Amino acid sequence: MYTQLKKFSKEIFIKMGCSEADAEVAADVLVAADLRGVDSHGVARLSGYVRLWEAGRINTHPNIRIVHETPSTAVVDGDGGLGLVIAPFAMQVAIEKAKMAGTGWVAVRNSNHFGIAGKHAMMALEHDMIGMSMTNASPLVAPTYAAERLLGTNPIAVAVPAGNEPPFVADFATTTAANGKLEILQRKGHEAPTGWIQNATGQQSTNPDELKQGGALLPLGSDFEHGSHKGYCLGATVDILSAVLSGANYGPWVPPFVSFLPLAANPVGEGIGHFFGAMRVDAFRPAEEFKGHMDTWIRTFRNAKTIEGKETVLIPGDPERKLSVTRYTQGWELLPPVVKDLETLAEKFGVQFEYTASASYK
Amino acid sequence: MYTQLKKFSKEIFIKMGCSEADAEVAADVLVAADLRGVDSHGVARLSGYVRLWEAGRINTHPNIRIVHETPSTAVVDGDGGLGLVIAPFAMQVAIEKAKMAGTGWVAVRNSNHFGIAGKHAMMALEHDMIGMSMTNASPLVAPTYAAERLLGTNPIAVAVPAGNEPPFVADFATTTAANGKLEILQRKGHEAPTGWIQNATGQQSTNPDELKQGGALLPLGSDFEHGSHKGYCLGATVDILSAVLSGANYGPWVPPFVSFLPLAANPVGEGIGHFFGAMRVDAFRPAEEFKGHMDTWIRTFRNAKTIEGKETVLIPGDPERKLSVTRYTQGWELLPPVVKDLETLAEKFGVQFEYTASASYK
Repeated sequence: MYTQLKKFSKEIFIKMGCSEADAEVAADVLVAADLRGVDSHGVARLSGYVRLWEAGRINTHPNIRIVHETPSTAVVDGDGGLGLVIAPFAMQVAIEKAKMAGTGWVAVRNSNHFGIAGKHAMMALEHDMIGMSMTNASPLVAPTYAAERLLGTNPIAVAVPAGNEPPFVADFATTTAANGKLEILQRKGHEAPTGWIQNATGQQSTNPDELKQGGALLPLGSDFEHGSHKGYCLGATVDILSAVLSGANYGPWVPPFVSFLPLAANPVGEGIGHFFGAMRVDAFRPAEEFKGHMDTWIRTFRNAKTIEGKETVLIPGDPERKLSVTRYTQGWELLPPVVKDLETLAEKFGVQFEYTASASYK
Repeated sequence: MYTQLKKFSKEIFIKMGCSEADAEVAADVLVAADLRGVDSHGVARLSGYVRLWEAGRINTHPNIRIVHETPSTAVVDGDGGLGLVIAPFAMQVAIEKAKMAGTGWVAVRNSNHFGIAGKHAMMALEHDMIGMSMTNASPLVAPTYAAERLLGTNPIAVAVPAGNEPPFVADFATTTAANGKLEILQRKGHEAPTGWIQNATGQQSTNPDELKQGGALLPLGSDFEHGSHKGYCLGATVDILSAVLSGANYGPWVPPFVSFLPLAANPVGEGIGHFFGAMRVDAFRPAEEFKGHMDTWIRTFRNAKTIEGKETVLIPGDPERKLSVTRYTQGWELLPPVVKDLETLAEKFGVQFEYTASASYK
């Protein structure tokens, strides 16, 4: 099923005008989200990319290029292309810089949604490098004490190679809950826990539809007493590195992913911004030594004493990796609206959509 | 009063055997914490450093040196010296690397407590660089689902230069509440808010003395439902960059700051670890352009619509900077036990302690 969805996504990207190579990369990044269980960022978004392209907001023949560089840094201009293609290009630049200078840091402007952050950070692993990846996003989050939305869910991913253990892969929104989790509650008609959202005047709310009425997601920490100013600092740092450093739009100016919302009237930069980092482990200590200690780190945490009822202390990346294996081998079920969405795309572009929710695909 | 306390601290460091130059740096870093309102990390800790030195755990004649390097990286061995001295040395190495390679990244091993993280990150500002600083610390924090302490409060600081606006300076523990806040509640005999701590079996607790009975601080986010796994990812990343990368102790092996606790039996590295970064802004875009946009960023956030009763959305670094000015010009009041502590030190080392809690010093 993974292969089918990837093939289908690739064909749609080709129909949008992407080159064969770009479509392959974009599909690989997109469907990696489904595989890792971040359903909100996978094929469920394919029609969103199509609508952005139809609205003239995605350039499928971009001239993605380095516009400024030093031995350990670069700025990449994405030329309004698919973030799904620009991000792997930029991460590769970071990796090449790291090979020569020990580390590489790449700020990207003029891009759009790049899929899941973790996928890009993980590119560093096979080179025995620590990878980092972050992006700003359209404003849905109110900083501590604010009654308006100024930041995106601005995720951070960090991937660290280990030896015999699988790698450490952290990938998280800098909010209490990612927007995808809110969407699940909306679909199910359930209330949100307190601490996830506030209403238009800044009061705590449990209504998952609050964002449609001027409400906002809350930074990690939920409220000042529980450290929301720290989550705000994190989201702000991601915004600054991704956009103020690259020349992209930041804060309330970040372009929306949905094509029906207008772009900001007086943009402060170009498109949305990302930031990538790669650090060669052996720029610090011998790689085998480092990876041996990472094994010790991981085993120590995984085998720690747990709270009653919890089987194990989680290692960042473990749940997603396990799910990837299950989904790759056994398939998974798409939500009916997503299937319908993909069927509509298939019809529109004259591409065959093979998904059938039979047991063999589940 | 600032000048008095700095002079006094410097004299104590000299009595411990530090060189004049090292004592000056150490005192400058230590008292910067008081000035910025982080009282737990300032002169209140001076006697703690003395006790560590008396226990033979601080080398006051360290050979602080680079033991490995590439164009953009270095590993610094602190030789068991004062973290207050090692950290500025390492941050300066990062800055020098950044001058040549665009960015500089320095991992430090064989160190101990380095004061407030923000002070070191801010060293980058005068060079038009973004500064980063982090450190691991003795285990007080339980990862999500764990019933034991495996991480320190592992703070992260990020300093970003602006143009006409003062710089953006974020400096925060990766826990819901820093240990210093808990100490304040202990002194006052107040309960802690839920979400700050858990007891020895991992159940939520509001008893600020819980850590003395096997309890733990909680990662930023408090519980899984509110994203504590994200705070855990952050604290873990700080631990890995600071210690697994440098060859310091990590996780439960990090040496305690208090001299009465024993060192771990089978250390996995040397001392505690730090990690520093410096990124030249003009390695990405012209510095004036960047700083102009930082001004826009800061003003946009500062002037955002607030929740009723809140005057302004805070900009990271604003409260500490304002307090620094007040405390520098008007002085501040030390807590009686801290005064007593310093008087004891004065007597022990035959150094004059001039603090008087008169109005003019307040």
